Amino acid sequence: MAVDGVTDLLGMLAYASLVAFFRLSDDASLAASLPDKADLGEMAVHQFGHFQLLRARISELGSDPEQAMRPFVEPIDAFHARTAPSDFLESLVKAYVGDGIAADFYRVAADLLDEPTRGLVLTVLADSGEAEFAIARVREATAAEPAVAGRLALWARRLVGEALSQAQRVAAEREPLARLLTGGGPEGSASQLGEIGRMFAALADAQAQRMAALGLAP
Amino acid sequence: MAVDGVTDLLGMLAYASLVAFFRLSDDASLAASLPDKADLGEMAVHQFGHFQLLRARISELGSDPEQAMRPFVEPIDAFHARTAPSDFLESLVKAYVGDGIAADFYRVAADLLDEPTRGLVLTVLADSGEAEFAIARVREATAAEPAVAGRLALWARRLVGEALSQAQRVAAEREPLARLLTGGGPEGSASQLGEIGRMFAALADAQAQRMAALGLAP
Repeated sequence: MAVDGVTDLLGMLAYASLVAFFRLSDDASLAASLPDKADLGEMAVHQFGHFQLLRARISELGSDPEQAMRPFVEPIDAFHARTAPSDFLESLVKAYVGDGIAADFYRVAADLLDEPTRGLVLTVLADSGEAEFAIARVREATAAEPAVAGRLALWARRLVGEALSQAQRVAAEREPLARLLTGGGPEGSASQLGEIGRMFAALADAQAQRMAALGLAP
Repeated sequence: MAVDGVTDLLGMLAYASLVAFFRLSDDASLAASLPDKADLGEMAVHQFGHFQLLRARISELGSDPEQAMRPFVEPIDAFHARTAPSDFLESLVKAYVGDGIAADFYRVAADLLDEPTRGLVLTVLADSGEAEFAIARVREATAAEPAVAGRLALWARRLVGEALSQAQRVAAEREPLARLLTGGGPEGSASQLGEIGRMFAALADAQAQRMAALGLAP
């Protein structure tokens, strides 16, 4: 497995965590109540912890974290620019779905990584206390006002669509990363395309489970 | 010592820490380079840690953190609205000076508090690794471009002026807090006014030391 694919993966996840931190603390500062501010703030701080772990691992592997993150600045910033939440519930759904998509990536990647990196990835994965909070709050809101569910379900679909379109762009531009995530078959080969198909199917399944957990399944 | 003065103090510091977290992470998201983003992000996360400690202590004392913070939302928000940094260096000076002013308050308050609260306050005080970072960066910048020093010195003076004007407003509105910070003499008494005078003199001394540390002393 090429080291630069791993650096790419860690750089992408590190920048994604850093920006998730910014977006969540921004959402927190705009939340209407002090407890909501505190809860979203806690989710933000979690993301910063992920960023610190990932950045340390990139350095341990002998790469420069800044350079490892740089190729992903534009696509990840674009994702966030296109998915600015318009209220607290949309922020929660975005935090939950965004975190879930990141976790799916970690899971796909974990099997392909060397031992210390895999350990790190599983640590970050296990750290998901925020999921229950988001689920509880969204279910509460849709129970109180059922019409909200349709809007949030559409919102979640838009988030996934935007994430996939940026992922596609990254996969096209970062060949080592695409090769890592597809198990190393030659570019454009039947086995690589088969892997990509399986990966998207797994992502779609995981997303369906998340929507069901939020009570937003069709 | 009246418990509601302590709750006021903890509520004020808790909300100040929460908002410092929001402002610093916002500044971090706007910083030009990834290392600057990461450094300011770390300072932000520190502030959130203070918020969590203070909130826990308010609950332990049997008060509701949200209610304890509420009276300070307006003056602290007003302080930040009037002191939005226009660049990274102004953010750093604000973080350093703002943290310093908060530490001065902690110090004044520590002697007046019961043991567990005093322990908490000293823990929060000890946690000031960010000061060195800010000092180093500001000194670097003024060494490279001496004209910057004058602008940053003015900025620091404006920060203190705004902080004092909000503090005055808080002292006028929150009598229990003012009494706690002035050692409990009757309101308007000569001893209370003497305490306030001594407190402002101590704050001014500490601020002069901070300016010297930043290399911004006249």
